[in-house]
Amino acid sequence: MALIVQKFGGTSVGDPERMRAVADHVARTVRRGNQVVVVISAMGKETDDLLRMATEVARVRPGREMDMLITAGERKATALLGMALHDRSVPAASFTGSQAGFITDTTHTNAKIVEVRPTRLRQALEAGQVPVVGGAQGVSTDGDVTFLGRGGSDTTAVAIAHALEADICELYTDVTGVFTTDPRVVADARRIDRISFDELLEMTANGCPKPAMRSVEYARTHGVDLHVRSAFTWEQGTLVTKEDSDMEQAIISAVTHDTEEAKITITGVEDRPGVAGKLFRALAEQQVNVDVIVQNTSAAGHTDISFTVPKEDAVRAGEVTSGLTDEMGASGAVVDDGIARVSVIGAGMKTHPGVAATVFETLAANEINIEMISTSAIRISCVVREAQIEHAVQCLHAAFRLDEGPAYVD
Amino acid sequence: MALIVQKFGGTSVGDPERMRAVADHVARTVRRGNQVVVVISAMGKETDDLLRMATEVARVRPGREMDMLITAGERKATALLGMALHDRSVPAASFTGSQAGFITDTTHTNAKIVEVRPTRLRQALEAGQVPVVGGAQGVSTDGDVTFLGRGGSDTTAVAIAHALEADICELYTDVTGVFTTDPRVVADARRIDRISFDELLEMTANGCPKPAMRSVEYARTHGVDLHVRSAFTWEQGTLVTKEDSDMEQAIISAVTHDTEEAKITITGVEDRPGVAGKLFRALAEQQVNVDVIVQNTSAAGHTDISFTVPKEDAVRAGEVTSGLTDEMGASGAVVDDGIARVSVIGAGMKTHPGVAATVFETLAANEINIEMISTSAIRISCVVREAQIEHAVQCLHAAFRLDEGPAYVD
Repeated sequence: MALIVQKFGGTSVGDPERMRAVADHVARTVRRGNQVVVVISAMGKETDDLLRMATEVARVRPGREMDMLITAGERKATALLGMALHDRSVPAASFTGSQAGFITDTTHTNAKIVEVRPTRLRQALEAGQVPVVGGAQGVSTDGDVTFLGRGGSDTTAVAIAHALEADICELYTDVTGVFTTDPRVVADARRIDRISFDELLEMTANGCPKPAMRSVEYARTHGVDLHVRSAFTWEQGTLVTKEDSDMEQAIISAVTHDTEEAKITITGVEDRPGVAGKLFRALAEQQVNVDVIVQNTSAAGHTDISFTVPKEDAVRAGEVTSGLTDEMGASGAVVDDGIARVSVIGAGMKTHPGVAATVFETLAANEINIEMISTSAIRISCVVREAQIEHAVQCLHAAFRLDEGPAYVD
Repeated sequence: MALIVQKFGGTSVGDPERMRAVADHVARTVRRGNQVVVVISAMGKETDDLLRMATEVARVRPGREMDMLITAGERKATALLGMALHDRSVPAASFTGSQAGFITDTTHTNAKIVEVRPTRLRQALEAGQVPVVGGAQGVSTDGDVTFLGRGGSDTTAVAIAHALEADICELYTDVTGVFTTDPRVVADARRIDRISFDELLEMTANGCPKPAMRSVEYARTHGVDLHVRSAFTWEQGTLVTKEDSDMEQAIISAVTHDTEEAKITITGVEDRPGVAGKLFRALAEQQVNVDVIVQNTSAAGHTDISFTVPKEDAVRAGEVTSGLTDEMGASGAVVDDGIARVSVIGAGMKTHPGVAATVFETLAANEINIEMISTSAIRISCVVREAQIEHAVQCLHAAFRLDEGPAYVD
């Protein structure tokens, strides 16, 4: 008998018919002799509907009230799935995040988990019930309802799997797994059978939308095995585990892209210690989330610093940067929101420097100019013109023959 | 400075525009120097929508899950009104029934309040905030979410007013107050300025739909003054208080009617001790809610027993009764769902026997046959044919000249 956490996203439970299909699947899993804990998101576009309603009612929308509002969506979904399970003679009980023991900090709309005390979930399992837990929610140390933020249901599921020492955490979604690249961009994108936490983390940090990056971080830290799979076809999806010997050779796993960032360049900065520190401290104080940072080679005592930020932060970041040009002895600041980033990700890359060369050569051969480069042990990212991003993804996916299987490099 | 509890029903907050209008009213009340606690129902038809969705998802619908589902509606409404108040620079904080301190028994879908511990509401008031509380909900002694049943928001409001020793509990609704009779039946029905708990309790027990009877009972027991008024016109409505010297003369206050019951008659029962007890014990065991009971005068050792039950219980009650006819030595049982009940209600009635005579004479003069009679100290009810009920209401309302003001009798 295995203990399985099954998480279902909003589209997976988008209407009563989908809710019944999910209940059927949970019931099948129980009848095969497993213990199951379900984590569920709000149905379909409900969270969007609630947010829209809030804008219709108030211009000032305190986080505490937003959290009370939004978590109502998951509450409904848990109750409905609980009933649907009873209807299939599977004993079940719904739990809010608070009842499930999710204690969070007091950062409303984006709370962090402080502790998980799954006493009631354990009791329910011992009583032979399937606990159905509202995703992305908890109760703060002040006793208020909190929301873990968009995509927080994945994190809830992983945290429960960790707290209950579950055998596997299954994340059911509207795609059949993790792909070598975006199937909308590359027709022969291939579903990956197995991937390491590190690689998936790099992928989600570089444009792969699911599962939520935060949940992958949590799973990686605590070693919770994931299974990313479809709630529509129910076929086997992608297993996410620690690197094993099998993986070591699979040097390139995926190509991701991200079009949600803008590039800011501050030119002619005096090349002296403390300058960059001043800039990024000022940005941090304005809550601007800086991603890639590149400082170009210094020439004649001056340098250019470029960095990327989410597009919604670009105006604010541009203002902060412009306000510092004098102090930094810089000649100017430029905001460019016509960029995009392509990333090649693979666990074995660190020992194979030839990969970087292949990336740069492939882009050059396709007349795609590289504006910034950043790398990690398992990733190479290039900032290119946004207009060329799909072409960049396609030619890199083809260069590493990812449609045929994981790319091995000598 | 007064402490005022303001309760708003579903139609009062049916859409974002209504929600803003309610926020404006609460803000005005605060700016006049009052402390306010708001109790709010789910928006518009949301509770109906949730119930419908449950039937689409499951045939078996456990009460625990239904309560989790339904209370999501009030949760949304509290958060939205909380935001709308912030938007008007009125500090506010939303609270679930559990956070507001409503401890209930474990009877799901119709829980009873065990205790109210309004610690967090007191703290919010002391901090200068308007607490916005989800109506009709609490947490059971087992730690599960509970629903107090339809109309439970009125009870929540009265219970909070009692626990916080509020000066008044204002129940805002879609009518302008309590009327001498149903304005849809009698065009010149008049709004009552002031009425006693006892009278309003008899009215709600005899067909007057608002406020919920249970909340009137609670208010009567604990002496919580009510003000039933409109959330659309905001005009002064009906004050509900203890009887005072003013009221003693206002002998007839209202005429109500109820078409939701059926009459069951068991004929030719042996007139010996214990027979009626056996019947009504059997009905109670089947959860049949018996209302008026009349046993006709015994003739030759046999008697007829008639009683009314809610129409939805009529079939079950008929079966129970038929099953007992042999044992009771009865000749048969008849279910009649073509009846209705008209009631004349007035606090001073007990000392004025002429009122009953006027009721019977008026109905006779209008050729309306009386099938059953039941009375209390402040009420006379007559069961008549359902087809004649509106005519009965109209002629009694006219007979006591309720359109002109409270009827005084010599």
